[in-house]
Amino acid sequence: MALAALVDDLVTANHILYNEGVVDGFGHVSIRHPDDPGRYFLARSIAPAVVRREDILEFDLDSNAVDARGARPYLERFIHGEIYRVRPDVQAIVHSHSPSVIPFGATGTTLKPIFHLGGFLGSGTPIFEIRESGGDSTDMLIRSPQLGVALAKTLGAASYALMRGHGSVAVGGSLKQVVYRAIYGEVNARLQSQALQLGTVTYLNAAEAASAAATNDQMVERPWELWKKRVAAW
Amino acid sequence: MALAALVDDLVTANHILYNEGVVDGFGHVSIRHPDDPGRYFLARSIAPAVVRREDILEFDLDSNAVDARGARPYLERFIHGEIYRVRPDVQAIVHSHSPSVIPFGATGTTLKPIFHLGGFLGSGTPIFEIRESGGDSTDMLIRSPQLGVALAKTLGAASYALMRGHGSVAVGGSLKQVVYRAIYGEVNARLQSQALQLGTVTYLNAAEAASAAATNDQMVERPWELWKKRVAAW
Amino acid sequence: MALAALVDDLVTANHILYNEGVVDGFGHVSIRHPDDPGRYFLARSIAPAVVRREDILEFDLDSNAVDARGARPYLERFIHGEIYRVRPDVQAIVHSHSPSVIPFGATGTTLKPIFHLGGFLGSGTPIFEIRESGGDSTDMLIRSPQLGVALAKTLGAASYALMRGHGSVAVGGSLKQVVYRAIYGEVNARLQSQALQLGTVTYLNAAEAASAAATNDQMVERPWELWKKRVAAW
Amino acid sequence: MALAALVDDLVTANHILYNEGVVDGFGHVSIRHPDDPGRYFLARSIAPAVVRREDILEFDLDSNAVDARGARPYLERFIHGEIYRVRPDVQAIVHSHSPSVIPFGATGTTLKPIFHLGGFLGSGTPIFEIRESGGDSTDMLIRSPQLGVALAKTLGAASYALMRGHGSVAVGGSLKQVVYRAIYGEVNARLQSQALQLGTVTYLNAAEAASAAATNDQMVERPWELWKKRVAAW
Repeated sequence: MALAALVDDLVTANHILYNEGVVDGFGHVSIRHPDDPGRYFLARSIAPAVVRREDILEFDLDSNAVDARGARPYLERFIHGEIYRVRPDVQAIVHSHSPSVIPFGATGTTLKPIFHLGGFLGSGTPIFEIRESGGDSTDMLIRSPQLGVALAKTLGAASYALMRGHGSVAVGGSLKQVVYRAIYGEVNARLQSQALQLGTVTYLNAAEAASAAATNDQMVERPWELWKKRVAAW
Repeated sequence: MALAALVDDLVTANHILYNEGVVDGFGHVSIRHPDDPGRYFLARSIAPAVVRREDILEFDLDSNAVDARGARPYLERFIHGEIYRVRPDVQAIVHSHSPSVIPFGATGTTLKPIFHLGGFLGSGTPIFEIRESGGDSTDMLIRSPQLGVALAKTLGAASYALMRGHGSVAVGGSLKQVVYRAIYGEVNARLQSQALQLGTVTYLNAAEAASAAATNDQMVERPWELWKKRVAAW
Repeated sequence: MALAALVDDLVTANHILYNEGVVDGFGHVSIRHPDDPGRYFLARSIAPAVVRREDILEFDLDSNAVDARGARPYLERFIHGEIYRVRPDVQAIVHSHSPSVIPFGATGTTLKPIFHLGGFLGSGTPIFEIRESGGDSTDMLIRSPQLGVALAKTLGAASYALMRGHGSVAVGGSLKQVVYRAIYGEVNARLQSQALQLGTVTYLNAAEAASAAATNDQMVERPWELWKKRVAAW
Repeated sequence: MALAALVDDLVTANHILYNEGVVDGFGHVSIRHPDDPGRYFLARSIAPAVVRREDILEFDLDSNAVDARGARPYLERFIHGEIYRVRPDVQAIVHSHSPSVIPFGATGTTLKPIFHLGGFLGSGTPIFEIRESGGDSTDMLIRSPQLGVALAKTLGAASYALMRGHGSVAVGGSLKQVVYRAIYGEVNARLQSQALQLGTVTYLNAAEAASAAATNDQMVERPWELWKKRVAAW
């Protein structure tokens, strides 16, 4: 029953991430199984906006589907499995090509918190360079356990990492928190990009970022209700 | 009866500010009580787009709810209470994280009127630096009367102030005027930001800004009717 | 009968200009009377998106309403009257605060045709500086016949003029042509602004601009049908 | 039957390209006849968003309509005919004025793959300068077989070419692939433009671009289903 509600929330999160401009035809969001930390839920290979409950599959941490029911999984499911393996605090993950974020990874510019809602970015976001672990002729995708391990290592203890020439990954302690982080990571990137054209930016310092993040973590229900209401009207 | 209509307008203003891109899941708008200058109306802690009449609470100028009816108030209600206390001319206030405005506060760039509709920005907008009154490890929020007092002091006699790493506050002599100012503050920021990439900007001078603002103050009904019609279709 | 259809088109043009992002709560569009060149049609003072047939008023070239029916006219109707007076080729006029165009006027940057659809911009757009005719403390509005005359003089034989700190005016030989010009003036400004960040721009030369404009003048029905269909669904 | 389904897809592609911001009132998409490589299908001269099945005409490679049924063809149909003639691998073509791409052609800046979804851009996009084949007083349009030949020569073996002062052309081995390329060519341009403001861009190298393109070519069904669903709701 609680699990069914969580899976419904995962479907809603797929729709929200599309509606708020984080994912397009590509990108994915997962949740860890609430009763079995060695399992996670993720849609089959399908555009997030059209995900329904029956598209959700269960995976183990090696990213093998428990029962694929004939469906094709995302090539990059290893992003999820390998991060869940080494980050017991993480309960939900978003991988996206969120548009304002791509130019940061491509230019080696770290995302930093430009306003309180970006506090979770802390002292800046690590950048994953796939050439270091995958060589210089990959298709840029995290299509193997080894690449997933390397990405998880770059992420470290952070809540958000950039992927050069590809996109980003956001992690959170709950589904609502990671949706918040994926959305405000995109917003922060847009604002930071504009600010860098205007002059020298005063970012939140480490203490401000931590304080703001602690406050905002108590607030994730408020925008979730709004985002959910918007996609409920579909 | 008149009060009920005003509260209905406050609900509409919440919806308009979302629909026109000034607020998202966060931000708030208040009105002073028309019959008691020591009171104001503000929604409970909820996303502006989903505010209904029953979500509106009444506060005194210490920002205590007269009757909270079990609801949680906004952490930052002191923005409203402390500005109403020292600015008897102010009848309505908007606090937002209006996106184009954030880069200005973060870079110490004042907003200036780039076109007649931004005339209310006068000779430029003050910038509130929370570190001066709250120290360098706040969560950036105006979560105490003291911080509200400091913000009101920075605002002074202006109609609009920037808040570094956070957002902005707009004040007005009526609800429709403050909604106009919140919306055109955002528009002016976007235009100013683009113009600064093109070359040296000729802003409205002080006399032009004052004349334009005086004219536009007579015009706030015109866009309000449009904005209201747009959200009435929700 | 033909006149009624033309007035219906004027109502549609009001809606299109809002829907395509040229006007917001402000801005206006007029047509010259098809049977009396000394008269023109323009809405009463109202947001373009909500104009209905009964809001259309008839004016003489002194911009006096023939029969105001108790309605308040636009303060800036002199833009229309004074241009119609000196430009017999002009049958329709749009005045707007089209957003991408404002930064050009404010920085003294002329609009130039960056692609064939902007060919009507010719060798560049004149810029009206109200201080030259109105002094340095106006409210920026064309609120008198004298200011209308000055604006018409700056416009000269051009199809588009910028107004520093205010907006722009587009003129055309038909309603559909002027709507095309108002929309693609805005598009051209956005593209030109982005291109100036990328490098040195090769604009259409005078011959290319003239040739492209001549071709496009035969094409205005095509986008009109699309734009009309979009607002018909309102 | 298969042909009818393909023509239905062509109608859908017209709608998708409008809905995703690649075309506006102008631009066009064609498919080669699946059973006769010397023929192609293209709408009559009409805005893509309003194309219906009965608007689709059949052309030979000289771009003469097999049966025009009284309809006016696009002036620039030679883009299609002349590319199909020299590129037997090409089964579908999009010509557009996709907005983010125009500034690249106008400044002589080649599009390069900034993320994996732009892999099909390879080592960069050729730029067509119409002055070289058409002289310096054209209306910028590919309105003759000769200009079509010249454009096809500039395109060479590439999948995407810029047209200075005009727009771009994308080609593909299938309709779904070319729609993908037209959409992500626009996205890549927007991201590349922003990245160039942030710093030095690390593009996908040739091997990464080729690998990413090979992977993405297997994925075009996924966003197509989403895009199709969005326009089906019209």
